[in-house]
Formats: sequence, C-alpha cells, structure tokens
Amino acid sequence: ADASALAAAAQRNGQLTKPPGALGRLEEVGIWIGGWQGRAQPQIDHPQVVIFAGNHGVTAQGVSAFPSEVTVQMVANFRHGGAAINQLARLHGAEVEVVALELDRPTADFTQGPAMTEAETVAALQAGWNAVSPKADILVVGEMGIGNTTVAAALAAKLFGGTGMDWVGRGTGVDDAGLTRKAKAVDAGLARHADVTGPLQVLAALGGREVAAMAGAMARARVERVPVVLDGFIACAAAAVLHCATPGALDHAVAGHLSAEGAHARLLEKLGKQPLLSLGLRLGEGSGAAVALGVIRAAVVCQSGMATFAEAGVSGG
Amino acid sequence: ADASALAAAAQRNGQLTKPPGALGRLEEVGIWIGGWQGRAQPQIDHPQVVIFAGNHGVTAQGVSAFPSEVTVQMVANFRHGGAAINQLARLHGAEVEVVALELDRPTADFTQGPAMTEAETVAALQAGWNAVSPKADILVVGEMGIGNTTVAAALAAKLFGGTGMDWVGRGTGVDDAGLTRKAKAVDAGLARHADVTGPLQVLAALGGREVAAMAGAMARARVERVPVVLDGFIACAAAAVLHCATPGALDHAVAGHLSAEGAHARLLEKLGKQPLLSLGLRLGEGSGAAVALGVIRAAVVCQSGMATFAEAGVSGG
Repeated sequence: ADASALAAAAQRNGQLTKPPGALGRLEEVGIWIGGWQGRAQPQIDHPQVVIFAGNHGVTAQGVSAFPSEVTVQMVANFRHGGAAINQLARLHGAEVEVVALELDRPTADFTQGPAMTEAETVAALQAGWNAVSPKADILVVGEMGIGNTTVAAALAAKLFGGTGMDWVGRGTGVDDAGLTRKAKAVDAGLARHADVTGPLQVLAALGGREVAAMAGAMARARVERVPVVLDGFIACAAAAVLHCATPGALDHAVAGHLSAEGAHARLLEKLGKQPLLSLGLRLGEGSGAAVALGVIRAAVVCQSGMATFAEAGVSGG
Repeated sequence: ADASALAAAAQRNGQLTKPPGALGRLEEVGIWIGGWQGRAQPQIDHPQVVIFAGNHGVTAQGVSAFPSEVTVQMVANFRHGGAAINQLARLHGAEVEVVALELDRPTADFTQGPAMTEAETVAALQAGWNAVSPKADILVVGEMGIGNTTVAAALAAKLFGGTGMDWVGRGTGVDDAGLTRKAKAVDAGLARHADVTGPLQVLAALGGREVAAMAGAMARARVERVPVVLDGFIACAAAAVLHCATPGALDHAVAGHLSAEGAHARLLEKLGKQPLLSLGLRLGEGSGAAVALGVIRAAVVCQSGMATFAEAGVSGG
C-alpha cells in the first residue's frame, strides 16, 4: 500500500464527525482501501467479479453430492444471470466475468498422479492473471468446480500440515460416508505427493485449474494495487499458495466472510485474516465476498463522504 | 407475517440454483422479509431511515464525553448530509428523515424525578408513529441524543433487572470516572423510580423523547407489516419497551448488528435476537442497522432474483 495515502486516510478519518473509533472495523477497512487505492478518499466505482470454473479428476473418488456436469450447467447459469453471484454483483454495480477453464478436460485424479502438468498450471495461472481489469478498484475472485472443496482441503493439508479429516467439510452437502471418502482421497493425495515441495509444485500436484487461476488473479491484483476480497474455503486455499510462496502476498486482501465449510476458520487463521462477516454461507461463486463488498462499500462511503468536525461545525469530544 | 407468503417464500428458496442452505443466514432473512412483505419475491425499493433526536436532563450528572449542544449540531449535520448515516443511507437509495424533538427543552434529570410527563411521553410516541411512511418496504430507526446511552442503560436495568454497572458502557468515549458516574446515575434513577411498574411508565420515568419516538415508529411498522432493522444499544432499549409490553411486538424486527457499547449483547439476548453483523460499531444514528441493510438487500436479491434448477437446467443434488 501507499504509505503516504495510508497516513492521509488515517488523518482524515480522525477528523470525521463521529467519536474516535465509533465506526469500528469500518474505519480500519476505509483507511486500508485508501492506502491501496492511493487516496485519502477512496471510491468503489468499478468493482470487478471474476469467476473461474474447472473440473476435477478426483471426483472419481465419490467426493461430491453433485455430478461434474453441474460445473458447466452452472457456468451457463452465471452467463444467463441466474446464480446468486449475479444478483449480488448487480446489487453492487459489478459485472460478472466467467472464465471456464477446459471443462471438458478435467484435471487428473490427484490420488493417482499430479492433477496438472507444469504447463497446465502455468496456463491456468496466466488465465487468472489476464482476467483482472486494471481499471478495477476492488476485486472479488470466485469459483465453481464440482469436487473443489476436496482439492482445497488437499492443498491446505499439504501447505499447513494435518490429515484429510482435519481439512475436509461437507461441501455441497455430502453425508458422513461422503465426508470419509473426501478425507481418504486427501490422505491418498498427500501420500502420493509426499515428496513434492514448493507452493507452486503443490498447486500442480493437488490443485485445479480454477484454483490456479484464482491465485493468478490475486497476484495480478497485488501488482496493480487492486484490493481483493477473499471468499470462502477454496478462494483461501488459492490465496494460501501465494501466502506460502511470498510473505506479504496477501497484504492487499481482506477476508470477506467465515464460511460454514469445515476448516475455513483454521485456514483464515493460517493466513492471519479476520473475516468481516460470519453468516453461514458455503456456496462459493464469490458469493460471500460479494456480500462483504456491501460492508466495504459502507466503509468507503463513510471514509470519503462524511463531513469533518470543522466542516460541520460540530464540537469535538 | 403472512403465513402463506412465508410458505411460498420458503418453497421458492428450496428451488433456487444452490445446494440447500448454502446461503446460510441470507436464506432465513430472505424468507422472513418475504413473509412480512407478503410475497415470495420480496423487494427493497423504498427503504426508509428515520433519526429521532432528543436531549436529556441526566447529562447534569456528567455522563457524556460530549456537551449537549452536539445533539443540535449533529441534527444540522444530518440535514446537510455530512454524517455517517447520510452516506450509508445514500448507498442504499434511502432518504434520511430527521425528527428533532424539542431539543431546547431537555427531559428532566431522572435521578431527581420522572424524565417525562405522561403527555410528553405520548407526544414522543406519536411523533415516532407518524414518522413511518406506509410506502416503506423496510425501516431503519436511528437516534442522536447526548446522554442517551445512560438513558438506555437505565431502561434496560429497570426492565430486565441488574445494577447500573451491569448495563452502562463507554458511550461516545467516557473514561473510567465517567463510567462510574453513569452507573451511579442509573442506580440513582432505579432507586428514585423503584415503585414504577409497566413498560410505558418505565419509559416515562427513565426514558427520553427520541427513545419513545423510536418505540412509536417500531410499533407503527409492526401494524403496517414493515420489517425493521434494529440498530444498537439505544434502539434496542426502545425495542425492549415494546417487547416487555406485548409478546411478539418485535417479530417484524431483525437485529442489524452487535454494538461495541457495553451491554448490547445482553440486551439482544433478552430480546431473543441474533445480530447479522459484529463489526465493533458504537455510533448510533442507525448506522449499524444501515450497514446491515446491505446484508438484507443481498438476501432479498438472491431470494427474488435467482433462477430455479428447472429454469436454469441445472441438475439437482
């Protein structure tokens, strides 16, 4: 972030017509956005929502309550404007871009071998990198991919330690047997790729195209100084790859919400992020981040639009 | 709420393109709004924000970090659009109405006698009742009144039991000595009005004009079936008067947020309400409720705008 813009934003905040700190976390968020946007009075005029979709070979292990065809069906739903994320994006004046990543060519089953080749991983990272609009003043990165909570659990377990059962959750709604299959698949992946080291190598071995693309988009946003709102478990697994690769890689990101998906709280703790919302969402698509965008916009309009004590002729405390 | 609209809203929710329950608390809120608005696809087209302002004799006990003149100064700030609530209301397309209640005639100091006469109490309740637009499809009721966290603490203590120290908080930012003065003032009020019974009598003895007006507005909204978003400690003290007077009086109200003000969590528990947000706000003005309005609008656009599985051609789970 821009240190002088951060200082100017904090100074402005201290002069606004409210007792110091009375807007709680909104004040911190407003100042932080000011720092990343490089102005004491930040604006959100061009919010961008990008959704990446991918399919996963690990669905062969019976890890999802829905069949893989749902990925392409939901991509069509996003394009026709019928999904939750479409409604939420419209509420905030954001367009939804959908990037479908070779849905007819799922990744390999990571219990049998690497999910992606190096070339496939790089192509997915680049697709994410290229999807970010440099005009965006805030970015929500979402995903769709039947099977990808298992992929995210495998990445988290490999990056931070622990077993499959420590990191899997119910996803779209698997029963106890499905949960056990998810944990077994993750454990099999960890065993198969025990010798893999390095965050990007882990991403190739256990990740997926949409997860890599999310990481690519978040990295591009960091370079462009575009603040990012993190969504749920899968988005945070993508973020974790960057976090483990480069200290400070997520300084431009705020945790939008605490998902109801299994180990999201533990993953946020590993990333050092406090969620803005905790409403029990577990949908993906960027939906939790898009709801949090409402809180961030609230922070921004207060930071930028409120009168100072001097302007309003109000006596200070 | 309208039972058949509630059922229709719940049925629609079950057909939307998401796993069951995946939108968490948004689903409950969307269905609930549908029930109160009497339609399976609720809308928020006319959100109303009303702020009531009053002054308080109990400020003579040194209970606030700010002087009483700030009430009228902040009313001017509301009218000029410079306060936090103005920015938040504009974000949601809501007009802010400000009702200043005899600011040059503060209530009596409740440590010495009743804060208001019966006639003054009724006039304030009526001012609140009359301020609600029957066209409103959701209502935020806010307040401004130097000294009113002490008033709210006194009301809560009288209605639910406990001492001053159990219910007071730092308000606009008093120090330890100020906090002790607030607790002493509440205890003195409780002693002075020990023989008062009945929620409306308690409101007259220990309340204030803006608190009575908030209660009047919430009661009117109940009759008009307009859903209400509760703000912080003072709004909830006003709501508590209705809650203690009539079972179900707050069925049309959702708790917008958990305030950082002292005993708000305990007060919400007494009202049986779970807050949507917990962001450390403690400003009043309806600001926390207005931030929560963003979450409620998110719930409504999902409930009303999402495609069903059948419409989108997506395979069910």
